[in-house]
Amino acid sequence: MDRTDAETPLAELKANMQRFVEERNWQQFHSPKNICMALAIEVAELMEHFQWLTLEESRDIARQPDKLAAVAEEIADVFGYTLALANELGIDIATSVRRKMVKNAIKYPVEQYRGRYGPEDQRAVE
Amino acid sequence: MDRTDAETPLAELKANMQRFVEERNWQQFHSPKNICMALAIEVAELMEHFQWLTLEESRDIARQPDKLAAVAEEIADVFGYTLALANELGIDIATSVRRKMVKNAIKYPVEQYRGRYGPEDQRAVE
Amino acid sequence: MDRTDAETPLAELKANMQRFVEERNWQQFHSPKNICMALAIEVAELMEHFQWLTLEESRDIARQPDKLAAVAEEIADVFGYTLALANELGIDIATSVRRKMVKNAIKYPVEQYRGRYGPEDQRAVE
Amino acid sequence: MDRTDAETPLAELKANMQRFVEERNWQQFHSPKNICMALAIEVAELMEHFQWLTLEESRDIARQPDKLAAVAEEIADVFGYTLALANELGIDIATSVRRKMVKNAIKYPVEQYRGRYGPEDQRAVE
Repeated sequence: MDRTDAETPLAELKANMQRFVEERNWQQFHSPKNICMALAIEVAELMEHFQWLTLEESRDIARQPDKLAAVAEEIADVFGYTLALANELGIDIATSVRRKMVKNAIKYPVEQYRGRYGPEDQRAVE
Repeated sequence: MDRTDAETPLAELKANMQRFVEERNWQQFHSPKNICMALAIEVAELMEHFQWLTLEESRDIARQPDKLAAVAEEIADVFGYTLALANELGIDIATSVRRKMVKNAIKYPVEQYRGRYGPEDQRAVE
Repeated sequence: MDRTDAETPLAELKANMQRFVEERNWQQFHSPKNICMALAIEVAELMEHFQWLTLEESRDIARQPDKLAAVAEEIADVFGYTLALANELGIDIATSVRRKMVKNAIKYPVEQYRGRYGPEDQRAVE
Repeated sequence: MDRTDAETPLAELKANMQRFVEERNWQQFHSPKNICMALAIEVAELMEHFQWLTLEESRDIARQPDKLAAVAEEIADVFGYTLALANELGIDIATSVRRKMVKNAIKYPVEQYRGRYGPEDQRAVE
């Protein structure tokens, strides 16, 4: 029975990935440089699903079960290599994400970026 | 006080990301196509740290606190956009990762891939 | 005085790149694996210019001289690493491109793909 | 009969690509944003060939005709989308590459970077 994101601590998925790698003795291939390259390749496979679509068409994927399942599988691959990289380097992801969100909240204050994607966006703040 | 991967369910990080996006009204920019592109860009920023290193040198990053912190920040960005994409499409990551690991365990049986990275790897099984 | 694409054989740009690399003794860093990674990073820098734009907005770049110049510079980087990779592996690019175009003309016959981007495109042929 | 890089002006390959696109009425899909994404995907397919190899093994590809042919085909795809992007934006590649090389020669003077890949490279100049 699948357990969802609500019930799954990140450390559990990291441990699953670690076991998978060790059972195959794949640590030898998992230099950070290699994993990072693998991660880029998986992201490209994810992009393939959106490559020729308009932005609106890419949103519609959420309502097409077959395509959504294919996309979810690519997301799992991207996620898996991210876990593998964190494992290899001994990085705590939750801590890193929280710290980066604090930085981003300072970099993109709500009152300056509401409805603007970045400094180069010429729109007025909403 | 930071809580670690052991104590952080994925859903919590997804909710943090969702709040960050909504506060800035950035859902309008977060079409899956755009997020996917942003994700590829962040992975490239991660690759920059390993670009000219040998495989061994890339492993040594784990023992260089300054570089490791910079890499952890890029991993946080990659992770953040992966969460944002899952949020946008309504994908449960833990479920998708577990399903993909079952598939991968069938695709790469231990007895055929121990010490071999894939079908094209000419080495004998360890 | 700049000479244009009309007057520049590919081999001349390849030779320029080769000289640049040799003067700095950078062949040692130019393993195909490294160059390929560098190429991916440059493509990501190119993507940054289009990341949050709509498809139409991305076409408008052609009419914005400052942005176009910035994009042209990224294209030069992408092109440069492609030349460097061909140099390192001894590949004739013109020959490879012509061969691939023959393959693609067979894979995408005009009468089946006129106005359709690929097999998964549900539109009728124009 | 194939003509080589020595005899092929860039403009000729650009024109071939332009004709290919127009025959299929694919300009509608060739927004710079889309082509750029396609380019990133092709670079990832190129990376797949080097993903698990050591740097030395990646150099050995030059002496393996089958693998080299496969790599040359991916390079052709990368090159093709670069041409398509330049076509779409009206960019002269040769001019852009020469300008960037002048910039790079200033950024990386021979006497400071001989045998060092960049400012972060701790090695002494050769």
